[in-house]
Amino acid sequence: MTRFSLARYLPILDWGRSYGRADLSNDMVAAVIVTIMLIPQSLAYALLAGLPPEMGIYASIMPIILYAIFGTSRALAVGPVAVVSLMTAAAVGQVAASGTAGYITAAITLAGLSGAMLLLMGVLRLGFLANFLSHPVIAGFITASGILIATSQLGHIFGVRAEGHTLPEMLWSLGAQIGQVKPVTLAIGVAATVFLFWVRRGLKPLLLGLGLPLRIADVITKAGPVFAVAAITAVVWGFDLAAAGVAIVGVVPQSLPPLTLPSFDPALVQSLLLPALLISVVGFVESVSVAQTLAAKKRQRIRPDQELIGLGAANIGASLTGGFPVTGGFARSVVNFDAGAATPAAGAFTAVGLAIAAVALTPLIHFLPKATLAATIIVAVLSLVDLGILKRAWTYSQADFWAVAVTIGVTLGLGVEAGVSSGVALSVLLHLWKTSRPHVAEVGLVPGTQHFRNINRHAVLTDPAVLSLRVDESLYFANARFLEDYIHDRVVADCPVRDVVLMCSAINAIDMSALESLEAINARLGAMGVRLHLSEVKGPVMDRLKRSHFLDALSGQVFLSQYDAIRALTALADDSLPQAEE
Amino acid sequence: MTRFSLARYLPILDWGRSYGRADLSNDMVAAVIVTIMLIPQSLAYALLAGLPPEMGIYASIMPIILYAIFGTSRALAVGPVAVVSLMTAAAVGQVAASGTAGYITAAITLAGLSGAMLLLMGVLRLGFLANFLSHPVIAGFITASGILIATSQLGHIFGVRAEGHTLPEMLWSLGAQIGQVKPVTLAIGVAATVFLFWVRRGLKPLLLGLGLPLRIADVITKAGPVFAVAAITAVVWGFDLAAAGVAIVGVVPQSLPPLTLPSFDPALVQSLLLPALLISVVGFVESVSVAQTLAAKKRQRIRPDQELIGLGAANIGASLTGGFPVTGGFARSVVNFDAGAATPAAGAFTAVGLAIAAVALTPLIHFLPKATLAATIIVAVLSLVDLGILKRAWTYSQADFWAVAVTIGVTLGLGVEAGVSSGVALSVLLHLWKTSRPHVAEVGLVPGTQHFRNINRHAVLTDPAVLSLRVDESLYFANARFLEDYIHDRVVADCPVRDVVLMCSAINAIDMSALESLEAINARLGAMGVRLHLSEVKGPVMDRLKRSHFLDALSGQVFLSQYDAIRALTALADDSLPQAEE
Repeated sequence: MTRFSLARYLPILDWGRSYGRADLSNDMVAAVIVTIMLIPQSLAYALLAGLPPEMGIYASIMPIILYAIFGTSRALAVGPVAVVSLMTAAAVGQVAASGTAGYITAAITLAGLSGAMLLLMGVLRLGFLANFLSHPVIAGFITASGILIATSQLGHIFGVRAEGHTLPEMLWSLGAQIGQVKPVTLAIGVAATVFLFWVRRGLKPLLLGLGLPLRIADVITKAGPVFAVAAITAVVWGFDLAAAGVAIVGVVPQSLPPLTLPSFDPALVQSLLLPALLISVVGFVESVSVAQTLAAKKRQRIRPDQELIGLGAANIGASLTGGFPVTGGFARSVVNFDAGAATPAAGAFTAVGLAIAAVALTPLIHFLPKATLAATIIVAVLSLVDLGILKRAWTYSQADFWAVAVTIGVTLGLGVEAGVSSGVALSVLLHLWKTSRPHVAEVGLVPGTQHFRNINRHAVLTDPAVLSLRVDESLYFANARFLEDYIHDRVVADCPVRDVVLMCSAINAIDMSALESLEAINARLGAMGVRLHLSEVKGPVMDRLKRSHFLDALSGQVFLSQYDAIRALTALADDSLPQAEE
Repeated sequence: MTRFSLARYLPILDWGRSYGRADLSNDMVAAVIVTIMLIPQSLAYALLAGLPPEMGIYASIMPIILYAIFGTSRALAVGPVAVVSLMTAAAVGQVAASGTAGYITAAITLAGLSGAMLLLMGVLRLGFLANFLSHPVIAGFITASGILIATSQLGHIFGVRAEGHTLPEMLWSLGAQIGQVKPVTLAIGVAATVFLFWVRRGLKPLLLGLGLPLRIADVITKAGPVFAVAAITAVVWGFDLAAAGVAIVGVVPQSLPPLTLPSFDPALVQSLLLPALLISVVGFVESVSVAQTLAAKKRQRIRPDQELIGLGAANIGASLTGGFPVTGGFARSVVNFDAGAATPAAGAFTAVGLAIAAVALTPLIHFLPKATLAATIIVAVLSLVDLGILKRAWTYSQADFWAVAVTIGVTLGLGVEAGVSSGVALSVLLHLWKTSRPHVAEVGLVPGTQHFRNINRHAVLTDPAVLSLRVDESLYFANARFLEDYIHDRVVADCPVRDVVLMCSAINAIDMSALESLEAINARLGAMGVRLHLSEVKGPVMDRLKRSHFLDALSGQVFLSQYDAIRALTALADDSLPQAEE
């Protein structure tokens, strides 16, 4: 597996070789559907990131092609997505004002940095770093991001501007401008929102009720948003509502993606490093999870480290062609998959479709009201909001609940970067805290068997001179001292004890801290005239212990099984007692 | 245990009640011996911290008394120690120049801050935070500190000043001043160092060889340093070597400890927060380990959380009486214990002895050369240097080796604070990395038994349609995705598989991330037409799974044992086959 192979780094060589006519027609159909869906979405996410609308389309062209070459998922559709666009707005907003050239440069630089980090992580096989983002943290972060995004778009619906990157800031800003709400804009925004919700929930059942076949009802439902966008644009144009104060998209250049370069200004790069890392990791985690779910449906395989390279190439592509940070999107990938995309070539055809749109269709969106784009964003992101995660986490475990709650609270209250960072830090701390107080059971022999069970839960036989303890956790630095304290306290309080047996069946590893704690325990028990024994030590753990001097110093023995230990140290397992087979 | 009791927070009430005549005489003898040992040591550690010598004595008086009231160890002797004095010099040197009033104020403030943090950690029962300091990190840090301290004292021996807080800085500074070495100072320093080493290694065997009883040889050996200090001071005074350029301690005020207050200047407090935290944690870890080792010898108990309160009170006492950060010292505590100290009252008597010294004996040390104090420090700290830890760690585990090596390297190269911090960060990262790639064994049935073993190590029976996997690690966020990838890859590559059994005997916990990964694995396997089963799930893990919806969605079953699973899913355990009892 570690032998170099070009196909490993260029998955296109893999599927490209066997590409056939059937694949081509499947991919073309999927590309048409995804292109239609992506046009309003790309514009909307550029708006969310605080960038000119055409950048949303640019960000969907080159990245899709590069991912098709380097990525391992057959169905993943790469481009701007809601959460990453929000993170882009938060990061870039800290270094430049929206609408300036510096803002655009910073967004392009952020994409380049994120791409470089993803590539580097892929080449160095550092994909495991994404593991630090636990599921509860990601779930909490996405829910909070959805709330932030929806709130930020309320400004466009009201015809004002929601300033700030946190929920209190935005609500305050909206509240302060309540007198300046533009009624026509509000009417358009509310109508679009209600219509889009209805398309999502009510249209398909209605069409099926009218007797349309499922497949056609499906296509019509998917085209609904495009229809809404077209109809509203026509109304705004026909009644000249722009003159009535409705904010419209305006002039969009008719052009293929321009060639751009990220900035290499050290001060800018430095201030974007942390946001770029967070965007990379969040984007990667989301993307891999979508890719893996879709791959499973066709019993295909994705390689996470190669996914890093694919996404890295896509982001570098975005930064070289006027785009901003991208990743694999959930909704578009599912649509792509459902529409029958067979290979990443579907993505390349989508890119062609979007390039045609960028050149030919941009005049048509001149009169598209921003409130309509805001409505498409709101309807899309509200499906991300899942406050039920709080209840599920509370039911399952308090530590997970606090990780979710803190992530949601900090993201809403202090912004996306603080939210992700505090979520990661808290989950690591909670994990260390939990494993630093392992479950320790005092065990005794279940009469008539060779089994040992917790003396507090079962009627078992024990010998007051022999203390048998089962530790249900690997031993490492965070719980080494706990064990020292626990055994010390337990033996000091219990005078008749002359042997302690540590039953190691649940100990998967012993690090050097724990080894030294065991040495200290052995020495201190020795000072009290008590011997220390081990039982049921796992193979790999025993191999390691043999490389240290611990076994030489051990005052007692290492027994293969706890039963052997008890037979050697007590009369409990005396053969004269009646014994049943297990 | 959680009921409030005054004796819990005032251990003096415990031992004070039964204090008797025998205790009194034991404690008095120990106090005399410890006092004699502490006088030169206290002066030397003040010098090491860059403070006036009398502050070393002040730092040994009130802290000892307060620890006697609040601490739980019967033998621990609290005061300035080498490593904490070095950390004090590094921290205070960043905010003020040595020799200024600001430097003294900063040291006093550092003691106050450290005391407040220790108290807070004790009251909130946060002692587990000290677990983050793994044994290899502590061992590496102390070794590197010993090297730094010895190097810094070389300046006093040479009669120059070793500037800087890192090894390269100090060596560079010493090298640059090589022409200014003062020969008389050097002669005194070298003579003192050689003599003190000889006292440590050669004196006791010599005295025993001369027929002296062990106990007397012991006392003479311990008094050796005091004798050396006295003799050299007399020589310097007699030959007026101070006029010849030998740096001496000079005028030391004859006074009881003064009343002082820490500074509440927010800027100063803020810049000392991190150093205070590191000093508190390092001091606590060292102190608890000494206290526990000594307590074990008399089958006594110490309570780590109450130790935090005892050390916190000691440091606050230090900051109110002209001292600097203190903790429980190893050498002095062992001497105290060996000299027969029965209760913390021995500490209080030591404090009285030191108070008498502060008032009456300070004129005697006027002519004490700093080179002699430096010699006592060098001889004391070289016993801390243990480069063998590198080899032992390498033999035992690479992760532990890197934790030690990085801690030593960073401490020497960048200073004590960076050294401790990077050691802690690295050990946490390495732990997460190790547990993020758990050992997964594919298992099969050992013929004629009900046991399951790794198919790569044993000749076992398997069914190509049933994949049995044993994961040797608790499942949590850092390895949740690993498991998803592992099972996905394994099943995709192996077409006949229709059942996957996860044998959970080594899984002590499943957090919410891992639960969602299991749900994803279940759903993705389902999409491939493969069922997921669990076997040998531990009680607490099962309790938790029952609180989620996972078991409802599970495509397969939960089996009590792996054998039950194999019996239900395959013909391997067919009763018609010959079966041996275990």
